Amino acid sequence: MMDNHDIEALERRLRAVEDRLSIYNLISAYGPAVDACSIENNAELWTEDSVYKVGGLGEYVGHQGLRDMIEGPFHQDVTNGGSGHVLSLPHVHLDGDRAVATNYAKLFAHRDGVFTLRRLVVSRWELERRDGQWKIRRRTNVLLDGSPEGKALLARTPEGLDASNT
Amino acid sequence: MMDNHDIEALERRLRAVEDRLSIYNLISAYGPAVDACSIENNAELWTEDSVYKVGGLGEYVGHQGLRDMIEGPFHQDVTNGGSGHVLSLPHVHLDGDRAVATNYAKLFAHRDGVFTLRRLVVSRWELERRDGQWKIRRRTNVLLDGSPEGKALLARTPEGLDASNT
Amino acid sequence: MMDNHDIEALERRLRAVEDRLSIYNLISAYGPAVDACSIENNAELWTEDSVYKVGGLGEYVGHQGLRDMIEGPFHQDVTNGGSGHVLSLPHVHLDGDRAVATNYAKLFAHRDGVFTLRRLVVSRWELERRDGQWKIRRRTNVLLDGSPEGKALLARTPEGLDASNT
Repeated sequence: MMDNHDIEALERRLRAVEDRLSIYNLISAYGPAVDACSIENNAELWTEDSVYKVGGLGEYVGHQGLRDMIEGPFHQDVTNGGSGHVLSLPHVHLDGDRAVATNYAKLFAHRDGVFTLRRLVVSRWELERRDGQWKIRRRTNVLLDGSPEGKALLARTPEGLDASNT
Repeated sequence: MMDNHDIEALERRLRAVEDRLSIYNLISAYGPAVDACSIENNAELWTEDSVYKVGGLGEYVGHQGLRDMIEGPFHQDVTNGGSGHVLSLPHVHLDGDRAVATNYAKLFAHRDGVFTLRRLVVSRWELERRDGQWKIRRRTNVLLDGSPEGKALLARTPEGLDASNT
Repeated sequence: MMDNHDIEALERRLRAVEDRLSIYNLISAYGPAVDACSIENNAELWTEDSVYKVGGLGEYVGHQGLRDMIEGPFHQDVTNGGSGHVLSLPHVHLDGDRAVATNYAKLFAHRDGVFTLRRLVVSRWELERRDGQWKIRRRTNVLLDGSPEGKALLARTPEGLDASNT
Protein backbone atom coordinates (compact mmCIF):
# COMPACT_ATOMS: atom_id res chain seq x y z
CA MET A 1 0.00 0.00 0.00
CA MET A 2 1.02 3.59 -0.65
CA ASP A 3 1.49 5.48 2.58
CA ASN A 4 1.80 9.07 3.64
CA HIS A 5 5.51 9.01 2.94
CA ASP A 6 4.90 8.27 -0.75
CA ILE A 7 2.23 10.94 -1.05
CA GLU A 8 4.52 13.49 0.53
CA ALA A 9 7.28 12.64 -1.92
CA LEU A 10 4.80 13.10 -4.76
CA GLU A 11 3.76 16.47 -3.37
CA ARG A 12 7.40 17.61 -3.14
CA ARG A 13 8.01 16.67 -6.77
CA LEU A 14 4.84 18.45 -7.84
CA ARG A 15 5.92 21.58 -5.97
CA ALA A 16 9.27 21.55 -7.78
CA VAL A 17 7.45 21.37 -11.11
CA GLU A 18 5.18 24.25 -10.11
CA ASP A 19 8.26 26.23 -9.06
CA ARG A 20 9.88 25.77 -12.46
CA LEU A 21 6.74 26.98 -14.21
CA SER A 22 6.48 29.96 -11.84
CA ILE A 23 10.07 30.83 -12.71
CA TYR A 24 9.23 30.67 -16.43
CA ASN A 25 6.29 33.00 -15.77
CA LEU A 26 8.52 35.37 -13.79
CA ILE A 27 11.19 35.62 -16.47
CA SER A 28 8.68 35.92 -19.34
CA ALA A 29 7.09 38.90 -17.56
CA TYR A 30 10.29 40.96 -17.56
CA GLY A 31 10.35 42.03 -21.22
CA PRO A 32 6.73 43.23 -21.35
CA ALA A 33 7.22 45.21 -18.10
CA VAL A 34 10.22 47.18 -19.33
CA ASP A 35 9.07 47.59 -22.95
CA ALA A 36 5.84 49.07 -21.53
CA CYS A 37 8.01 51.31 -19.29
CA SER A 38 5.86 50.10 -16.41
CA ILE A 39 7.79 50.84 -13.22
CA GLU A 40 5.16 48.98 -11.16
CA ASN A 41 4.98 45.82 -13.29
CA ASN A 42 8.78 45.61 -13.31
CA ALA A 43 9.27 46.26 -9.56
CA GLU A 44 6.79 43.44 -8.82
CA LEU A 45 9.27 40.94 -10.32
CA TRP A 46 12.27 41.84 -8.13
CA THR A 47 13.09 41.57 -4.41
CA GLU A 48 13.41 44.88 -2.55
CA ASP A 49 17.17 44.31 -2.27
CA SER A 50 17.70 43.32 -5.90
CA VAL A 51 20.87 43.98 -7.87
CA TYR A 52 20.82 44.20 -11.66
CA LYS A 53 24.21 44.40 -13.34
CA VAL A 54 23.88 45.34 -17.01
CA GLY A 55 27.14 44.79 -18.85
CA GLY A 56 28.42 48.04 -20.34
CA LEU A 57 25.49 50.12 -19.07
CA GLY A 58 25.50 50.17 -15.26
CA GLU A 59 24.37 48.57 -12.02
CA TYR A 60 20.88 49.15 -10.66
CA VAL A 61 20.22 48.51 -6.95
CA GLY A 62 16.76 47.94 -5.48
CA HIS A 63 13.43 49.18 -6.82
CA GLN A 64 14.72 52.75 -7.01
CA GLY A 65 17.57 51.56 -9.22
CA LEU A 66 15.15 49.75 -11.52
CA ARG A 67 13.04 52.91 -11.76
CA ASP A 68 16.14 54.95 -12.61
CA MET A 69 16.97 52.46 -15.36
CA ILE A 70 13.51 52.75 -16.95
CA GLU A 71 13.52 56.54 -16.67
CA GLY A 72 17.09 56.84 -17.99
CA PRO A 73 17.89 58.20 -21.47
CA PHE A 74 19.00 54.87 -23.02
CA HIS A 75 15.79 53.08 -22.05
CA GLN A 76 13.50 55.99 -22.92
CA ASP A 77 15.10 56.41 -26.32
CA VAL A 78 14.90 52.74 -27.28
CA THR A 79 11.33 52.21 -26.03
CA ASN A 80 10.02 55.41 -27.61
CA GLY A 81 11.13 54.13 -31.00
CA GLY A 82 9.61 50.70 -30.36
CA SER A 83 11.40 47.80 -28.64
CA GLY A 84 11.29 44.16 -27.60
CA HIS A 85 13.37 42.80 -24.72
CA VAL A 86 12.96 39.18 -25.79
CA LEU A 87 14.31 36.53 -23.41
CA SER A 88 14.97 32.94 -24.43
CA LEU A 89 13.77 29.81 -22.60
CA PRO A 90 15.95 29.72 -19.46
CA HIS A 91 18.01 26.79 -18.23
CA VAL A 92 16.99 26.48 -14.57
CA HIS A 93 18.60 24.90 -11.51
CA LEU A 94 16.19 24.66 -8.60
CA ASP A 95 17.26 24.25 -4.97
CA GLY A 96 14.42 24.67 -2.49
CA ASP A 97 13.57 28.34 -2.11
CA ARG A 98 16.37 29.47 -4.39
CA ALA A 99 17.16 28.95 -8.05
CA VAL A 100 19.61 30.05 -10.70
CA ALA A 101 18.77 30.41 -14.38
CA THR A 102 20.72 31.24 -17.54
CA ASN A 103 19.37 32.46 -20.86
CA TYR A 104 19.88 34.93 -23.69
CA ALA A 105 18.31 38.38 -23.79
CA LYS A 106 17.89 40.18 -27.08
CA LEU A 107 17.01 43.83 -27.39
CA PHE A 108 15.31 44.44 -30.74
CA ALA A 109 14.75 48.10 -31.57
CA HIS A 110 12.62 49.80 -34.19
CA ARG A 111 13.72 52.97 -35.97
CA ASP A 112 12.46 54.42 -39.28
CA GLY A 113 10.53 51.28 -40.21
CA VAL A 114 13.49 48.95 -39.61
CA PHE A 115 13.98 46.46 -36.75
CA THR A 116 17.53 45.68 -35.65
CA LEU A 117 19.14 43.63 -32.90
CA ARG A 118 20.61 46.34 -30.72
CA ARG A 119 22.05 44.18 -27.93
CA LEU A 120 22.55 40.45 -27.33
CA VAL A 121 23.55 39.35 -23.84
CA VAL A 122 23.79 36.26 -21.68
CA SER A 123 21.84 36.65 -18.43
CA ARG A 124 22.42 34.83 -15.16
CA TRP A 125 19.43 35.10 -12.83
CA GLU A 126 19.54 34.40 -9.10
CA LEU A 127 16.01 33.86 -7.89
CA GLU A 128 14.44 33.50 -4.46
CA ARG A 129 11.04 32.61 -3.07
CA ARG A 130 9.92 35.50 -0.83
CA ASP A 131 6.56 35.24 0.96
CA GLY A 132 5.59 32.44 -1.38
CA GLN A 133 6.42 34.37 -4.57
CA TRP A 134 9.42 33.82 -6.83
CA LYS A 135 11.38 37.05 -7.31
CA ILE A 136 14.61 38.15 -8.99
CA ARG A 137 17.31 38.74 -6.37
CA ARG A 138 20.19 39.38 -8.75
CA ARG A 139 20.62 39.45 -12.50
CA THR A 140 23.91 39.77 -14.36
CA ASN A 141 24.10 40.52 -18.09
CA VAL A 142 27.22 40.26 -20.21
CA LEU A 143 27.26 41.53 -23.79
CA LEU A 144 28.12 38.83 -26.34
CA ASP A 145 30.64 40.85 -28.31
CA GLY A 146 33.36 38.22 -28.30
CA SER A 147 34.82 39.17 -24.92
CA PRO A 148 36.02 36.34 -22.64
CA GLU A 149 33.53 37.47 -19.94
CA GLY A 150 30.57 36.46 -22.11
CA LYS A 151 31.97 32.99 -22.80
CA ALA A 152 32.84 32.56 -19.12
CA LEU A 153 29.28 33.30 -17.98
CA LEU A 154 27.82 31.02 -20.67
CA ALA A 155 30.16 28.23 -19.55
CA ARG A 156 28.64 28.38 -16.06
CA THR A 157 25.15 27.40 -17.29
CA PRO A 158 25.31 23.82 -15.91
CA GLU A 159 26.39 25.07 -12.46
CA GLY A 160 23.91 25.08 -9.61
CA LEU A 161 23.72 27.50 -6.72
CA ASP A 162 26.76 26.35 -4.78
CA ALA A 163 28.98 27.71 -7.51
CA SER A 164 26.96 30.92 -7.81
CA ASN A 165 29.32 33.62 -6.58
CA THR A 166 28.64 36.17 -9.28
CA MET B 1 -3.35 10.22 7.39
CA MET B 2 -3.72 11.65 3.88
CA ASP B 3 -7.29 11.31 2.68
CA ASN B 4 -9.14 11.58 -0.59
CA HIS B 5 -9.43 15.31 -0.18
CA ASP B 6 -5.65 15.71 -0.22
CA ILE B 7 -5.23 13.46 -3.22
CA GLU B 8 -7.86 15.36 -5.14
CA ALA B 9 -6.09 18.64 -4.38
CA LEU B 10 -2.87 17.09 -5.67
CA GLU B 11 -4.61 15.96 -8.84
CA ARG B 12 -6.02 19.47 -9.43
CA ARG B 13 -2.56 20.99 -9.10
CA LEU B 14 -1.11 18.39 -11.45
CA ARG B 15 -3.81 19.13 -14.02
CA ALA B 16 -2.96 22.85 -13.89
CA VAL B 17 0.70 22.02 -14.55
CA GLU B 18 -0.27 19.78 -17.48
CA ASP B 19 -2.47 22.59 -18.82
CA ARG B 20 0.42 25.04 -18.77
CA LEU B 21 2.62 22.62 -20.68
CA SER B 22 -0.17 21.95 -23.19
CA ILE B 23 -0.46 25.69 -23.74
CA TYR B 24 3.30 25.91 -24.35
CA ASN B 25 2.95 23.09 -26.89
CA LEU B 26 0.02 24.85 -28.56
CA ILE B 27 1.81 28.18 -28.94
CA SER B 28 5.09 26.59 -30.07
CA ALA B 29 3.20 24.80 -32.88
CA TYR B 30 1.94 28.02 -34.46
CA GLY B 31 5.17 29.17 -36.15
CA PRO B 32 5.97 25.83 -37.82
CA ALA B 33 2.37 25.54 -39.10
CA VAL B 34 2.33 28.91 -40.86
CA ASP B 35 5.95 28.85 -42.06
CA ALA B 36 5.14 25.48 -43.67
CA CYS B 37 2.01 27.11 -45.18
CA SER B 38 0.10 24.14 -43.75
CA ILE B 39 -3.57 25.16 -43.65
CA GLU B 40 -4.44 21.92 -41.81
CA ASN B 41 -1.72 22.12 -39.13
CA ASN B 42 -2.64 25.73 -38.42
CA ALA B 43 -6.44 25.20 -38.32
CA GLU B 44 -5.92 22.41 -35.76
CA LEU B 45 -4.62 25.01 -33.27
CA TRP B 46 -7.65 27.35 -33.36
CA THR B 47 -11.30 27.08 -32.32
CA GLU B 48 -13.83 27.12 -35.17
CA ASP B 49 -14.95 30.60 -34.06
CA SER B 50 -11.45 32.04 -33.70
CA VAL B 51 -10.54 35.68 -34.28
CA TYR B 52 -6.99 36.70 -35.19
CA LYS B 53 -6.31 40.43 -35.25
CA VAL B 54 -2.97 41.20 -36.87
CA GLY B 55 -1.96 44.79 -36.24
CA GLY B 56 -1.55 46.67 -39.51
CA LEU B 57 -2.42 43.67 -41.70
CA GLY B 58 -6.04 42.62 -41.06
CA GLU B 59 -8.48 40.52 -39.05
CA TYR B 60 -8.99 36.85 -39.83
CA VAL B 61 -12.19 35.14 -38.63
CA GLY B 62 -12.57 31.37 -38.26
CA HIS B 63 -10.71 28.65 -40.14
CA GLN B 64 -11.60 30.21 -43.49
CA GLY B 65 -10.02 33.47 -42.37
CA LEU B 66 -6.83 31.66 -41.32
CA ARG B 67 -6.73 29.94 -44.71
CA ASP B 68 -7.14 33.29 -46.46
CA MET B 69 -4.24 34.67 -44.42
CA ILE B 70 -1.91 31.83 -45.44
CA GLU B 71 -2.96 32.05 -49.08
CA GLY B 72 -2.71 35.86 -49.14
CA PRO B 73 0.09 37.69 -51.01
CA PHE B 74 1.97 38.92 -47.89
CA HIS B 75 2.24 35.44 -46.38
CA GLN B 76 3.03 33.72 -49.69
CA ASP B 77 5.76 36.23 -50.49
CA VAL B 78 7.48 36.02 -47.11
CA THR B 79 7.32 32.22 -46.83
CA ASN B 80 8.50 31.64 -50.41
CA GLY B 81 11.67 33.56 -49.62
CA GLY B 82 12.18 31.66 -46.34
CA SER B 83 10.69 32.67 -43.00
CA GLY B 84 10.51 32.01 -39.27
CA HIS B 85 7.55 33.11 -37.15
CA VAL B 86 9.41 32.73 -33.86
CA LEU B 87 7.36 33.15 -30.66
CA SER B 88 8.90 33.79 -27.27
CA LEU B 89 8.15 31.89 -24.04
CA PRO B 90 4.63 33.10 -23.11
CA HIS B 91 3.57 34.51 -19.76
CA VAL B 92 0.45 32.49 -18.93
CA HIS B 93 -2.54 33.06 -16.62
CA LEU B 94 -4.61 29.92 -16.19
CA ASP B 95 -8.24 29.90 -14.99
CA GLY B 96 -9.93 26.54 -15.32
CA ASP B 97 -10.82 25.89 -18.95
CA ARG B 98 -9.63 29.29 -20.09
CA ALA B 99 -6.27 31.03 -20.14
CA VAL B 100 -4.64 34.20 -21.37
CA ALA B 101 -1.02 34.44 -22.50
CA THR B 102 1.28 37.26 -23.61
CA ASN B 103 4.49 36.97 -25.59
CA TYR B 104 6.54 38.44 -28.44
CA ALA B 105 6.31 37.24 -32.02
CA LYS B 106 9.14 37.88 -34.43
CA LEU B 107 8.90 37.40 -38.16
CA PHE B 108 12.36 36.75 -39.59
CA ALA B 109 12.54 36.72 -43.37
CA HIS B 110 15.21 35.53 -45.78
CA ARG B 111 15.94 37.34 -49.05
CA ASP B 112 19.07 37.15 -51.22
CA GLY B 113 21.10 35.32 -48.58
CA VAL B 114 20.27 37.80 -45.81
CA PHE B 115 17.96 37.29 -42.80
CA THR B 116 16.17 40.33 -41.38
CA LEU B 117 13.59 40.96 -38.67
CA ARG B 118 10.60 41.98 -40.75
CA ARG B 119 8.04 42.41 -37.94
CA LEU B 120 8.11 42.43 -34.14
CA VAL B 121 4.79 42.33 -32.30
CA VAL B 122 3.35 41.72 -28.87
CA SER B 123 0.70 38.99 -28.91
CA ARG B 124 -2.15 38.49 -26.47
CA TRP B 125 -3.66 35.00 -26.72
CA GLU B 126 -7.05 34.02 -25.33
CA LEU B 127 -7.17 30.25 -25.05
CA GLU B 128 -9.91 27.76 -24.28
CA ARG B 129 -10.15 24.07 -23.62
CA ARG B 130 -12.58 22.57 -26.15
CA ASP B 131 -13.37 18.84 -26.02
CA GLY B 132 -10.31 18.36 -23.83
CA GLN B 133 -7.90 20.18 -26.19
CA TRP B 134 -6.45 23.65 -25.67
CA LYS B 135 -7.17 25.91 -28.65
CA ILE B 136 -6.65 29.55 -29.61
CA ARG B 137 -9.95 31.45 -29.35
CA ARG B 138 -8.57 34.91 -30.02
CA ARG B 139 -5.16 36.39 -30.74
CA THR B 140 -4.34 40.08 -30.96
CA ASN B 141 -1.01 41.35 -32.33
CA VAL B 142 0.24 44.91 -32.05
CA LEU B 143 3.36 46.04 -33.93
CA LEU B 144 6.10 47.35 -31.64
CA ASP B 145 6.89 50.46 -33.66
CA GLY B 146 6.73 52.88 -30.74
CA SER B 147 2.96 53.40 -30.86
CA PRO B 148 1.09 53.71 -27.54
CA GLU B 149 -1.05 50.66 -28.47
CA GLY B 150 1.98 48.37 -28.26
CA LYS B 151 2.99 49.62 -24.82
CA ALA B 152 -0.63 49.40 -23.62
CA LEU B 153 -0.93 45.73 -24.59
CA LEU B 154 2.46 44.92 -23.05
CA ALA B 155 1.39 46.62 -19.83
CA ARG B 156 -1.56 44.21 -19.55
CA THR B 157 0.71 41.14 -19.25
CA PRO B 158 0.12 40.64 -15.48
CA GLU B 159 -3.68 40.80 -15.94
CA GLY B 160 -5.72 37.63 -15.79
CA LEU B 161 -8.92 36.83 -17.64
CA ASP B 162 -11.29 39.14 -15.79
CA ALA B 163 -9.54 42.11 -17.30
CA SER B 164 -9.39 40.52 -20.73
CA ASN B 165 -11.72 42.64 -22.87
CA THR B 166 -9.54 42.91 -25.93
CA MET C 1 -11.63 5.69 -1.73
CA MET C 2 -8.53 6.43 -3.80
CA ASP C 3 -6.41 3.31 -4.14
CA ASN C 4 -2.90 2.46 -5.24
CA HIS C 5 -3.99 2.34 -8.84
CA ASP C 6 -5.02 6.01 -8.75
CA ILE C 7 -1.82 7.07 -7.04
CA GLU C 8 0.26 5.24 -9.60
CA ALA C 9 -1.60 6.97 -12.44
CA LEU C 10 -0.88 10.28 -10.73
CA GLU C 11 2.79 9.42 -10.44
CA ARG C 12 2.98 8.51 -14.14
CA ARG C 13 1.45 11.85 -15.12
CA LEU C 14 3.84 13.69 -12.81
CA ARG C 15 6.80 11.88 -14.36
CA ALA C 16 5.67 12.94 -17.85
CA VAL C 17 5.54 16.55 -16.69
CA GLU C 18 9.02 16.27 -15.16
CA ASP C 19 10.26 14.75 -18.42
CA ARG C 20 8.95 17.69 -20.44
CA LEU C 21 10.70 20.15 -18.13
CA SER C 22 13.93 18.12 -18.28
CA ILE C 23 13.73 18.28 -22.08
CA TYR C 24 13.31 22.06 -21.91
CA ASN C 25 16.37 22.22 -19.66
CA LEU C 26 18.34 20.01 -22.06
CA ILE C 27 17.54 22.08 -25.15
CA SER C 28 18.10 25.41 -23.38
CA ALA C 29 21.60 24.24 -22.39
CA TYR C 30 22.74 23.73 -25.97
CA GLY C 31 23.26 27.37 -26.98
CA PRO C 32 25.33 28.35 -23.93
CA ALA C 33 27.53 25.23 -24.34
CA VAL C 34 28.49 25.95 -27.95
CA ASP C 35 28.71 29.74 -27.63
CA ALA C 36 31.13 29.15 -24.74
CA CYS C 37 33.03 26.69 -27.00
CA SER C 38 32.78 24.23 -24.11
CA ILE C 39 33.41 20.79 -25.56
CA GLU C 40 32.58 19.19 -22.18
CA ASN C 41 29.31 21.06 -21.53
CA ASN C 42 28.13 20.26 -25.05
CA ALA C 43 29.11 16.56 -25.02
CA GLU C 44 27.16 16.13 -21.77
CA LEU C 45 23.93 16.88 -23.67
CA TRP C 46 24.30 14.20 -26.36
CA THR C 47 24.32 10.38 -26.39
CA GLU C 48 27.65 8.74 -27.28
CA ASP C 49 26.17 7.64 -30.62
CA SER C 50 24.62 11.00 -31.50
CA VAL C 51 24.18 12.31 -35.04
CA TYR C 52 23.92 16.03 -35.73
CA LYS C 53 23.01 16.99 -39.29
CA VAL C 54 23.52 20.70 -39.90
CA GLY C 55 21.93 21.78 -43.16
CA GLY C 56 24.52 23.21 -45.54
CA LEU C 57 27.42 22.75 -43.11
CA GLY C 58 27.97 19.04 -42.44
CA GLU C 59 27.13 15.99 -40.35
CA TYR C 60 28.77 15.42 -36.96
CA VAL C 61 28.81 11.90 -35.50
CA GLY C 62 29.34 11.14 -31.82
CA HIS C 63 31.20 13.23 -29.26
CA GLN C 64 34.26 13.43 -31.51
CA GLY C 65 32.12 14.89 -34.27
CA LEU C 66 30.71 17.51 -31.90
CA ARG C 67 34.24 18.42 -30.83
CA ASP C 68 35.29 18.76 -34.46
CA MET C 69 32.33 21.08 -35.06
CA ILE C 70 33.30 23.37 -32.16
CA GLU C 71 36.96 23.38 -33.17
CA GLY C 72 36.16 23.94 -36.86
CA PRO C 73 36.82 27.27 -38.62
CA PHE C 74 33.15 28.31 -39.03
CA HIS C 75 32.36 27.89 -35.33
CA GLN C 76 35.64 29.43 -34.13
CA ASP C 77 35.18 32.46 -36.36
CA VAL C 78 31.59 33.15 -35.33
CA THR C 79 32.15 32.63 -31.59
CA ASN C 80 35.35 34.69 -31.53
CA GLY C 81 33.40 37.66 -32.84
CA GLY C 82 30.58 37.10 -30.34
CA SER C 83 27.58 34.82 -30.91
CA GLY C 84 24.25 33.56 -29.62
CA HIS C 85 22.79 30.23 -30.69
CA VAL C 86 19.28 31.07 -29.48
CA LEU C 87 16.70 28.26 -29.58
CA SER C 88 12.96 28.84 -29.39
CA LEU C 89 10.50 27.07 -27.07
CA PRO C 90 10.28 23.54 -28.52
CA HIS C 91 7.09 21.70 -29.44
CA VAL C 92 7.54 18.32 -27.72
CA HIS C 93 6.02 14.86 -28.24
CA LEU C 94 6.78 12.52 -25.39
CA ASP C 95 6.60 8.73 -25.62
CA GLY C 96 8.04 6.93 -22.61
CA ASP C 97 11.84 7.03 -22.76
CA ARG C 98 11.89 8.76 -26.12
CA ALA C 99 10.71 12.11 -27.39
CA VAL C 100 10.79 14.26 -30.49
CA ALA C 101 10.87 18.05 -30.46
CA THR C 102 10.75 20.78 -33.10
CA ASN C 103 11.85 24.40 -32.77
CA TYR C 104 13.71 27.25 -34.45
CA ALA C 105 17.41 27.93 -33.94
CA LYS C 106 18.81 31.37 -34.64
CA LEU C 107 22.50 32.13 -34.88
CA PHE C 108 23.08 35.79 -34.05
CA ALA C 109 26.61 37.00 -34.69
CA HIS C 110 28.46 40.14 -33.62
CA ARG C 111 30.97 41.88 -35.85
CA ASP C 112 32.26 45.47 -35.68
CA GLY C 113 29.63 46.55 -33.16
CA VAL C 114 26.71 45.17 -35.18
CA PHE C 115 24.58 42.09 -34.45
CA THR C 116 23.06 40.21 -37.39
CA LEU C 117 21.03 37.04 -37.84
CA ARG C 118 23.54 34.83 -39.60
CA ARG C 119 21.46 31.64 -39.83
CA LEU C 120 17.84 30.66 -39.16
CA VAL C 121 16.99 26.96 -39.17
CA VAL C 122 14.24 24.57 -38.14
CA SER C 123 15.55 21.84 -35.82
CA ARG C 124 14.07 18.39 -35.28
CA TRP C 125 15.41 16.75 -32.11
CA GLU C 126 15.18 13.04 -31.34
CA LEU C 127 15.74 12.56 -27.64
CA GLU C 128 16.25 9.54 -25.41
CA ARG C 129 16.46 8.84 -21.72
CA ARG C 130 19.77 7.10 -21.06
CA ASP C 131 20.63 6.04 -17.49
CA GLY C 132 17.89 8.31 -16.23
CA GLN C 133 19.11 11.40 -18.14
CA TRP C 134 17.52 12.92 -21.21
CA LYS C 135 20.05 13.23 -24.05
CA ILE C 136 20.06 14.27 -27.71
CA ARG C 137 20.27 11.19 -29.95
CA ARG C 138 19.83 12.95 -33.27
CA ARG C 139 19.31 16.52 -34.38
CA THR C 140 18.54 17.68 -37.92
CA ASN C 141 18.71 21.34 -38.97
CA VAL C 142 17.38 22.74 -42.23
CA LEU C 143 18.12 26.32 -43.27
CA LEU C 144 14.98 28.41 -43.79
CA ASP C 145 16.03 29.96 -47.09
CA GLY C 146 12.80 29.18 -48.92
CA SER C 147 13.78 25.65 -49.94
CA PRO C 148 11.06 22.96 -49.88
CA GLU C 149 13.14 20.93 -47.37
CA GLY C 150 12.63 23.60 -44.70
CA LYS C 151 8.86 23.70 -45.16
CA ALA C 152 8.71 19.90 -45.20
CA LEU C 153 10.47 19.59 -41.85
CA LEU C 154 8.32 22.36 -40.32
CA ALA C 155 5.19 20.56 -41.54
CA ARG C 156 6.20 17.47 -39.52
CA THR C 157 5.97 19.33 -36.19
CA PRO C 158 2.69 17.67 -35.09
CA GLU C 159 4.07 14.18 -35.81
CA GLY C 160 5.09 11.92 -32.96
CA LEU C 161 7.83 9.33 -32.93
CA ASP C 162 6.23 6.71 -35.16
CA ALA C 163 6.60 9.02 -38.11
CA SER C 164 10.14 10.00 -37.14
CA ASN C 165 12.30 8.57 -39.91
CA THR C 166 14.52 11.57 -40.42
